[in-house]
Amino acid sequence: MAQQDKKLVEAITPMDEDFAQWYTDIVKKAELIDYSSVRGCCVLRPYSYAIWENMQKILDGMFKETGHQNVYMPMFIPESLLQKEKDHVEGFAPEVAWVTEGGGKKLEERLCVRPTSETLFCEHYKNIVHSYRDLPKLYNQWCSVVRWEKTTRPFLRTMEFLWQEGHTIHETSEEAVAETERMLNVYARFYEEFLAIPVLKGRKTEKEKFAGAVATYCIEAMMHDGKALQAGTSHYFGDGFAHAFDIQFQGRDNTPQYPFQTSWGMTTRTIGAIIMTHGDDSGLLLPPAVAPVQVMVIPVAQHKAGVLEEARRVREKIGAVCRADIDESDNSPGWKFAEHEMRGVPLRLELGPRDIEKGQCVLVRRDTREKAIVPLDALETEIPRLLGAIHDEMFRRAKENRERRTFEARTLEELIRLAETESGYIKAMWCGDTACEEALKEKAGVTSRCIPFEQEHLCDTCVCCGKPAKHLVYWGKAY
Amino acid sequence: MAQQDKKLVEAITPMDEDFAQWYTDIVKKAELIDYSSVRGCCVLRPYSYAIWENMQKILDGMFKETGHQNVYMPMFIPESLLQKEKDHVEGFAPEVAWVTEGGGKKLEERLCVRPTSETLFCEHYKNIVHSYRDLPKLYNQWCSVVRWEKTTRPFLRTMEFLWQEGHTIHETSEEAVAETERMLNVYARFYEEFLAIPVLKGRKTEKEKFAGAVATYCIEAMMHDGKALQAGTSHYFGDGFAHAFDIQFQGRDNTPQYPFQTSWGMTTRTIGAIIMTHGDDSGLLLPPAVAPVQVMVIPVAQHKAGVLEEARRVREKIGAVCRADIDESDNSPGWKFAEHEMRGVPLRLELGPRDIEKGQCVLVRRDTREKAIVPLDALETEIPRLLGAIHDEMFRRAKENRERRTFEARTLEELIRLAETESGYIKAMWCGDTACEEALKEKAGVTSRCIPFEQEHLCDTCVCCGKPAKHLVYWGKAY
Repeated sequence: MAQQDKKLVEAITPMDEDFAQWYTDIVKKAELIDYSSVRGCCVLRPYSYAIWENMQKILDGMFKETGHQNVYMPMFIPESLLQKEKDHVEGFAPEVAWVTEGGGKKLEERLCVRPTSETLFCEHYKNIVHSYRDLPKLYNQWCSVVRWEKTTRPFLRTMEFLWQEGHTIHETSEEAVAETERMLNVYARFYEEFLAIPVLKGRKTEKEKFAGAVATYCIEAMMHDGKALQAGTSHYFGDGFAHAFDIQFQGRDNTPQYPFQTSWGMTTRTIGAIIMTHGDDSGLLLPPAVAPVQVMVIPVAQHKAGVLEEARRVREKIGAVCRADIDESDNSPGWKFAEHEMRGVPLRLELGPRDIEKGQCVLVRRDTREKAIVPLDALETEIPRLLGAIHDEMFRRAKENRERRTFEARTLEELIRLAETESGYIKAMWCGDTACEEALKEKAGVTSRCIPFEQEHLCDTCVCCGKPAKHLVYWGKAY
Repeated sequence: MAQQDKKLVEAITPMDEDFAQWYTDIVKKAELIDYSSVRGCCVLRPYSYAIWENMQKILDGMFKETGHQNVYMPMFIPESLLQKEKDHVEGFAPEVAWVTEGGGKKLEERLCVRPTSETLFCEHYKNIVHSYRDLPKLYNQWCSVVRWEKTTRPFLRTMEFLWQEGHTIHETSEEAVAETERMLNVYARFYEEFLAIPVLKGRKTEKEKFAGAVATYCIEAMMHDGKALQAGTSHYFGDGFAHAFDIQFQGRDNTPQYPFQTSWGMTTRTIGAIIMTHGDDSGLLLPPAVAPVQVMVIPVAQHKAGVLEEARRVREKIGAVCRADIDESDNSPGWKFAEHEMRGVPLRLELGPRDIEKGQCVLVRRDTREKAIVPLDALETEIPRLLGAIHDEMFRRAKENRERRTFEARTLEELIRLAETESGYIKAMWCGDTACEEALKEKAGVTSRCIPFEQEHLCDTCVCCGKPAKHLVYWGKAY
């Protein structure tokens, strides 16, 4: 590698030295975001937006397969509408942005820029749901929302972010609960099968659940540094919103009844999860399923007769089995290698004059750096196989990191010591009292990540108060 | 048709009786929109959002084919940023919504909810454009914008609407002008080849151009009632924004230079254009290319053994060549015919027990009501052919309507009389003075729609002042 080729890589702070700075370096240098003069808002540059588009395409397909339809609601919520559900407004009012002037005049009623759209969906349901025949409605919306966060960080916590919010309404509570679980499973499958990120499935405690929900289910992912990231949530509302918004339908027995609702969301913070799960000191590593470029063709000695032409032909050919691009810039091959490594392209295809003579090329994996000499006429089978292998290896490593960083505590002392010396999940039993949750936050700096669906029995008593334990809980520090 | 089947249709006001009410009836009854408690904002229901998604897919493909990349900018613009380009802020400031409070506090600087994003793109360009090697940047964004309109109407003029806004930046003015023209042609092709709506291509007058633009190009469509609709615009900015935002790059000769910019946009008002161009007294008629359902399968006598099964089989089979759906509800066939006519499904496929015996079905065109008996094994060729024929017939009718409603005026009296007695375009010569444009607005109630690229010479003098004429202009009343 020439001196100038190294510079690009050296500009990224090593993760062990300063994980936060490593993250910031990557989002800037891989050209994922640009900062704007609007506090806490980022520009999503073409490379990160293309990742988001690939994620959207997969998720949207999964939503439609499970019977959902897309709609679009207004971005403004009148204050009186936001206030209809008591818990909901309490949870969100402190962090909303208010429009108070429009068209040169002060408004009679403030409009909040949507932090989430339950209230708007409820208003709409009230208009369109009259009979059990109108149920269920299985809706989803792709949009941006605004939450006035105090401290922000690209992708992970921004004042405005892109997301999808599913909102469904059902005849019975059983159907609504089944929907809540179904969509949590869709999220889990998306994270594991497409992003190569293993997730824990579970339920949030009362303290951590969504404002207005009866129950919040979640998937939790663990980042490379051992911190947790809430990756997706699915809420069961019971008929609380229906009562607050007076949504009733004529039931099968001709009596008026209240319907049951759910909502579920996933956001651009998922891009942050990808960076912090798979990235390394050379930069990004993108899961093949969402990488804008899966294979980057790099001509070697491209000034020599026929090299560029053959490289273009190869790129064209493999375009049938993957998202391929070619780097024809006049940078040196070493510079190009470092740049596309940094941008996390899963596979690199090197093609020089001698390769062309022999009818072969070199494929280099971004994850293991393994090189393979592959005949050009085997690329259409070899590339999909390697992309699959890269996905599997990424998932294996992420799972290994999670296992290595998952600990057990049976006493408060153990938990406090683990929270001080290690970074990761701490499994410990809990009595179910919010007081103990708050005590653990204060004494050990950890929050409950979730009550996992797969319960274990570590011991009989709450790690905090010693009273009989009700659940195993994963505790940790979170983004 | 049974009595109850008729009711559905009779509920739509005939267009000749009250065109505005006809339009309102359709948007509600075809379940395109729902009104919300937010003034001037509509809910886009699944049916209209699916039309928008189909339009997005086609347009996004056309943008990517022409080398554009998608990005996402913040939805807020700090007041100081909006004010940097003088003409631009003058044009938009009166119709913006202001966020003045966030996170429970009054903001030090107001944030406007984007009415359009030129200023944000300029701020970003300043960060990322340093050398001619960084040019061009060909960006596009899909998002919603807010303009505080006084009177609103679903799709045509709403306070918030969905759109795409392309923003590009170039080394030379020639390149930027070519881009402005290229994207206008993309819009024209989209309208004519996919929406079956003929358009006029031309340039806006100084009075009608975009705030901050050197020149605004447009496509204009004519609605069924003879009123014009601005269907898409493409703006050339010269280097005005670059100067205002101090964007400079190092040129090929190593000197600092100002780049040249464009922007171009198309919105959900296009759905309004579809309704008002193709609809009739039975309801909507959707262009096959964007219809969420292209063929609706309607089982006749579906209670008879084997009918539903065969109808499902047919639907499955034709799914390979079109977007097909099946109506299995327990409404009568007559009710279903009326409902899917009203919703504008281009083709209806009727299948009853006798059809099944004979291995055939009945295809009914929504545009001409022509019925054809088609062998089931010919559907895969016959359906695409018919969808193509429907598109062509829709385009032909729309063009005929436009031709029938295009008039010529050589004197002011002629123009005033035409504006009073007819509804449509009036072609007339113009001297180029804004004073005459304003006089025509006052005296005849018409505005300049565009200076068409295809000029004609009707006479030598301005229709208003009698001075030498510079251009032929299309005048009319517009939505």
